[in-house]
Amino acid sequence: MSVFKKYLYTPGPVSVPPEVLLEMARPIIHHRTPEFSAALDSARERMRPLFGTRQEVLLLAASGSGAMEAAVTNLLAPGEAAIFVNGGKFGERWGKLLAAHGMTGHEVKVEWGRPVRPEQIQEALRSHPESRAVFMQASETSTCAIHPVADVAAVTRRGEALLVVDGITSVGVFEQKMDDWGVDAFLTGSQKALMLPPGLAMIALSERALQRTARNRTPRFYFDLNRELKAQRDEHTTAWTPAVSLIFGLNKSLELIHGETLPRVYERHRVMAEATRAAGMALGLKLIAPDSPAPGVTGLLVPDGIDSGKIVRMMRDELGVSVQGGQDQMKGRLVRIGHMGYLGPFDMLTAASALEIALARMGHRFTAGAGVAAVHERIARSV
Amino acid sequence: MSVFKKYLYTPGPVSVPPEVLLEMARPIIHHRTPEFSAALDSARERMRPLFGTRQEVLLLAASGSGAMEAAVTNLLAPGEAAIFVNGGKFGERWGKLLAAHGMTGHEVKVEWGRPVRPEQIQEALRSHPESRAVFMQASETSTCAIHPVADVAAVTRRGEALLVVDGITSVGVFEQKMDDWGVDAFLTGSQKALMLPPGLAMIALSERALQRTARNRTPRFYFDLNRELKAQRDEHTTAWTPAVSLIFGLNKSLELIHGETLPRVYERHRVMAEATRAAGMALGLKLIAPDSPAPGVTGLLVPDGIDSGKIVRMMRDELGVSVQGGQDQMKGRLVRIGHMGYLGPFDMLTAASALEIALARMGHRFTAGAGVAAVHERIARSV
Repeated sequence: MSVFKKYLYTPGPVSVPPEVLLEMARPIIHHRTPEFSAALDSARERMRPLFGTRQEVLLLAASGSGAMEAAVTNLLAPGEAAIFVNGGKFGERWGKLLAAHGMTGHEVKVEWGRPVRPEQIQEALRSHPESRAVFMQASETSTCAIHPVADVAAVTRRGEALLVVDGITSVGVFEQKMDDWGVDAFLTGSQKALMLPPGLAMIALSERALQRTARNRTPRFYFDLNRELKAQRDEHTTAWTPAVSLIFGLNKSLELIHGETLPRVYERHRVMAEATRAAGMALGLKLIAPDSPAPGVTGLLVPDGIDSGKIVRMMRDELGVSVQGGQDQMKGRLVRIGHMGYLGPFDMLTAASALEIALARMGHRFTAGAGVAAVHERIARSV
Repeated sequence: MSVFKKYLYTPGPVSVPPEVLLEMARPIIHHRTPEFSAALDSARERMRPLFGTRQEVLLLAASGSGAMEAAVTNLLAPGEAAIFVNGGKFGERWGKLLAAHGMTGHEVKVEWGRPVRPEQIQEALRSHPESRAVFMQASETSTCAIHPVADVAAVTRRGEALLVVDGITSVGVFEQKMDDWGVDAFLTGSQKALMLPPGLAMIALSERALQRTARNRTPRFYFDLNRELKAQRDEHTTAWTPAVSLIFGLNKSLELIHGETLPRVYERHRVMAEATRAAGMALGLKLIAPDSPAPGVTGLLVPDGIDSGKIVRMMRDELGVSVQGGQDQMKGRLVRIGHMGYLGPFDMLTAASALEIALARMGHRFTAGAGVAAVHERIARSV
């Protein structure tokens, strides 16, 4: 079949709406101008409901990993210790960041696809009372599982350790309540549910995190959040040259999101996730994260004897449908289908159809058409 | 359900590929320049295989109706007679054009959804031997039926009457052989399988049509094809100000089409059409044109007691999926689903799912999921 038209269902980057592409095609303006200040203020303000915060949301010209590093270097000092939840590739990254900056990381190991249990955090804090922070993901993209941020926050807010949450595949996908839960640092990136190209990160700090940051002497420059807070809050500009086009795009993207309204955005992602899970199960696949599946990306385990890498390549090269395989221990075993941002439930029909065709060609047996029928059924129930 | 993302399945206009949109966003250049001449020459050359002709393809800054008028005023003189096939809204338009220019139109009436029979043309030419031309559609968009152009041409090329064919929803959808068949004037528009916005038309004339045009004294100016031929063939420019951006876009669009290769483009349309017809039948609907269904648009008759206008509005307003209803006698009875241009077979899953949801809500009964399953089955067979 001709792969004339391409379909993108990777768990980031995602498709960018034409309205946003057009906005980003606007002529570049200089960033030390009232016009840029207005765009910056507006984007930061519009981000707040997605974080569930009244705190300042700071924009950084960086990918999500940059914001992760900012959280580490602004909240901890070399020699200090922290707990990090390692339930996948991104949890593991917290450990690498801590080590790179001479900090001690106490790992809370979680089986891939499982949520961390709040008691594990409680236990780790008891074992390592010197820990200054807990680092975790709201949604672990590599395993398609969500962690119970609210429950972990209920533990951390009773003590001195700050809770740092990577919301990269959760912000804009499902409801986040940074303030209500008691999250101390919350961050995300542009190329997921915010429907932008990569290159922009967002981070917000709680009051106690701000106090920590203000006193922290860890060497840092580009990601110095004290400097950034002063620039963005007080001077309505950024400390360093900002990603001007991405900030224009973010404004437009947030205009679309708030135009749809957040409850409907979250509902749309929920329907897409449920439809995709239903399709996977109808095709005889198992969820890698049955207990806490992520609403932004669905992980389906392929049957023994089938290489998920081949499925992914067949879908992409022969059918024009891009999804992602597994990483590390899940290489060859997992198919990850993203459903974030500029997609609707109907798009999951295409993902299910292409997956079914690839599985059938690999010799996997199931009722023909079961995947698309399951997606259709879920969509029909939602209208 | 949120209609955040929209899906366009009207039988024109169609979605424009991002590559083409970007090309049309290029800075405007003046049209009396070598750069414009190169773009014009290239677009005209690249159009030839889609028409199946070695004749000159002329570009007009007009919609398809403008090219229809050009065919009438360049090939006939006031007071002269012609035969026209009226099997739908666009066939009817030939009659209106002839009348508007003081010509006599002999109508060959064809039931909506049926193809004209070549014997009808033979009979009309016998009854009206003074007829100077036969006007018809290759694909009648209003009834979703194709007419047998090759067979009609086999009749007309034996006599003096020229054959004029509107290829508006056929060029780029399925193979056209203007020269081999013996079509004398062949025309199309930009907003169908050429994947462009409306505003550009194309027309080619056979040698005998060119001779007729050269001698024809019908008052005409903007659509004077003698002048246009001289300008485009000899001077590498247009007689009047051309639609510069659309010509840039046409070049890019034809680059995509030839990159995919015409056989694959036609196969893609065939699979989309067969999948859509299969979905309609699986949902218990009847084809309006069962004998000669158009590969560019599928017409499905809704059951008695259901208003197709309501189906169309429900799909568009509540599900974000645009299709079209019927016109005139088919108002309220027909749903037309376009599948031309920047679409792939997977997109027909969305059309089928949305149609099924709307039909179910109108009380129509069928096996749940039958539409999407039929589309999936047809796609699976094509890979």
